[in-house]
Amino acid sequence: MADAPDNTPPVAPASAVTPLDPTELQDAWALLLPDERLEYLMSLPRPAAEDLFLALPSSDQLEVLTQMPGADRRSWIRLLPADDVCEVVREAPDESRQSLLDLLDVQTLREVQAVLAFREDEAGGLMNPRYAALRPDMTVYEAISYLRRAAGHVETIYYSYVLDPEQRLLGVVSLSELFRVADQSTRIRGVMRTQFASVREDTPDEEAGRILADQDVLALPVLDEQGRMKGILTVDDLVDVIREAATEDMQKAAGMEALDAPYMKIAFWPMIKKRAPWLCVLLVGGMLTATAIAHYEDEIARAAVLVGFMPMILSSGGNAGSQASMLCVRALATGDVRLRDWARIFRKELAVGLVLGCILAAIGMLRIAGWQTAFHSYGGHWMLLGLTVSLALVGVVVLGTLVGSMLPLVLRKIGLDPAVASAPFVATLVDVSGLVIYFTIANLVLRGTLL
Amino acid sequence: MADAPDNTPPVAPASAVTPLDPTELQDAWALLLPDERLEYLMSLPRPAAEDLFLALPSSDQLEVLTQMPGADRRSWIRLLPADDVCEVVREAPDESRQSLLDLLDVQTLREVQAVLAFREDEAGGLMNPRYAALRPDMTVYEAISYLRRAAGHVETIYYSYVLDPEQRLLGVVSLSELFRVADQSTRIRGVMRTQFASVREDTPDEEAGRILADQDVLALPVLDEQGRMKGILTVDDLVDVIREAATEDMQKAAGMEALDAPYMKIAFWPMIKKRAPWLCVLLVGGMLTATAIAHYEDEIARAAVLVGFMPMILSSGGNAGSQASMLCVRALATGDVRLRDWARIFRKELAVGLVLGCILAAIGMLRIAGWQTAFHSYGGHWMLLGLTVSLALVGVVVLGTLVGSMLPLVLRKIGLDPAVASAPFVATLVDVSGLVIYFTIANLVLRGTLL
Repeated sequence: MADAPDNTPPVAPASAVTPLDPTELQDAWALLLPDERLEYLMSLPRPAAEDLFLALPSSDQLEVLTQMPGADRRSWIRLLPADDVCEVVREAPDESRQSLLDLLDVQTLREVQAVLAFREDEAGGLMNPRYAALRPDMTVYEAISYLRRAAGHVETIYYSYVLDPEQRLLGVVSLSELFRVADQSTRIRGVMRTQFASVREDTPDEEAGRILADQDVLALPVLDEQGRMKGILTVDDLVDVIREAATEDMQKAAGMEALDAPYMKIAFWPMIKKRAPWLCVLLVGGMLTATAIAHYEDEIARAAVLVGFMPMILSSGGNAGSQASMLCVRALATGDVRLRDWARIFRKELAVGLVLGCILAAIGMLRIAGWQTAFHSYGGHWMLLGLTVSLALVGVVVLGTLVGSMLPLVLRKIGLDPAVASAPFVATLVDVSGLVIYFTIANLVLRGTLL
Repeated sequence: MADAPDNTPPVAPASAVTPLDPTELQDAWALLLPDERLEYLMSLPRPAAEDLFLALPSSDQLEVLTQMPGADRRSWIRLLPADDVCEVVREAPDESRQSLLDLLDVQTLREVQAVLAFREDEAGGLMNPRYAALRPDMTVYEAISYLRRAAGHVETIYYSYVLDPEQRLLGVVSLSELFRVADQSTRIRGVMRTQFASVREDTPDEEAGRILADQDVLALPVLDEQGRMKGILTVDDLVDVIREAATEDMQKAAGMEALDAPYMKIAFWPMIKKRAPWLCVLLVGGMLTATAIAHYEDEIARAAVLVGFMPMILSSGGNAGSQASMLCVRALATGDVRLRDWARIFRKELAVGLVLGCILAAIGMLRIAGWQTAFHSYGGHWMLLGLTVSLALVGVVVLGTLVGSMLPLVLRKIGLDPAVASAPFVATLVDVSGLVIYFTIANLVLRGTLL
């Protein structure tokens, strides 16, 4: 158990409780105002404070370091492993990065600079350059002794990487596997796995996360083009990547740019900059409906009742498209679906769209029949009106499912992000063609009666 | 290195290559038709086949087990750790579950049944009941010796759980920490952490995933109500949970039920059942717009030009609402935002909505002015028409952002899933009130001129 806090009175309201359970500490932290945080951290017993500091998001770590007196800053930043230091430096404004790097020891500085050379969303920019390295001619006994000494100095001792003199990765062995070797004089060469998953320095972080999740391993080696070992990616780095990737995909799916920051933290104008551009693009796209409607002014003037069903029909196409696009975007992101599956997806969505369209058409017909019986709203040609609305519903729903499912595949094919096929984007695309479908069907069915 | 495959000719096209890299093996697997898979697996050298089998999703493991001759089934299912066996049994149809359970040894059977007593989306239903347990009065030397023997029999030896005689959890210690203890005769009591994160058997899996991600640990202990240790949840279980939770949230956000299966695997009618209900609800909701429009028949008859801008204005409200709802739903899911933040969110979205609305209003005004200059489309009162459209855009965008951001909070407050506030749902809610806003503004601005 950590030492009890000293007897100085609590400095911030939340610290009066001084809970020491890590989850509670983090919850308490989240409730504090930014300017209370440093005082709170310093009021905790040092081991608890260090644990809390290590578990904080890098933006909070930076905040704490910035507020700290310069003398403390060095010892606190040196608590962080090299990959976490990189994240803190990346969060810092350009002008204060160098002063943070100046706090590091020479070896860490060299490692941090190697990682900072890569983008944050690449394996090379996320990796930890401190890993447990073994030589193939070591014995299992020697390897375990080395790992004992390395514990605390490398990111994990649970996986070791067996390197040749040129630092090329020959094999991987877990500590658990080393423990299971009965004869400790066995050479590492004989127990290491020579078939293993690895990533390159420029592998995108989301792909690395997918490989890690699929392989059920706790760490992935990061290699350069020559197969030389550069660092490791651990599951805790990639859990955050997986969560952030999902958040970004959802924000894109809602027709906006990814925020890249928690909702409560992002400032006002950056928020506007993430949200306004797509709204403007969609508005301009939506103006095409105004142009399309102008073409049907005659029909509208003669049968104003057609206008009443217009938003409902257009929405149904958009809603069906939103389902289809989200399914495809997500299935592409998780690897459930690949480009070559397009024909199967097309057939599936065509069939699904037809059935969904028929279900909605039946409801639309019932609505019109019901209102006709109750209020005589639609006059003598109500059945033809119902037929028009029903056929239009089938048409726009099929159109929506096909556009929604194929657009993400097309975007991926031409090298764009499939997530651009957001629900609002698909809905806007479907709106104009939905109008054309609706009024074309109306002209065919109602010509000579209502029109 | 695994033995080379024997010289029998390849049984399936993909196996002609016999790649042994795990990622390539999995890619090759994904390309096979279901009835080629067992043959392919059996064509691999046994160690590679076992590794591939262990890495497969549980639905594929079940498929392979089912196709196997009964004699092989026992040895293959016994390769799986208890928690993976549970997933396979859960995938199996009710009538064949017992025959799978009959293949297990007595101890595994007891453990599997304990896990099956909980729901799959609870910690108790996901946990592995085999973990490394230590007594507090063991020495570090004894503990490491025990872990050597336990390697391979427990889910992980990297975390040990220190229990009292009643199986209550006293502390947690990692193997790395044990390795760092200089004096191996130290008692475990003195090195274990007594402050640790844990979950209860009925903790929802998504919450457990969030705790694991926030704590940066590789495993979480699962306790019963009396604080007795029941099993552990490891990061590889929870990585899948985190990915699946994101997929489900996205599918709900698109206005459908969560598929609970990969897109390419779900059958036709189950797919319809997941997608049709919300489309029908939204259609019925959309019918309210037909009713609302009927109220404005006079206005439409007198100024048909108003109809042209209707879909564009309604879509803008829906799009702004879609952004706001997705941001709030996701922020609630990741814990970035809590219910008590509602007033801050309200103020933020009100301000964001006003700015976004003004930007769109400016574009709308430009569009009308442009068309008027180029085509004289809107007659003498085009400025008043522009004013109407612009004011309506501000109104619906503010309405959209407020409804979109507040609805998820209200749903959470009354105990419903915030994800029900999907983009299409918010759009449909905003449509009717958007129509009222548009025509009310039109009546105020255009009374005496166009109307």
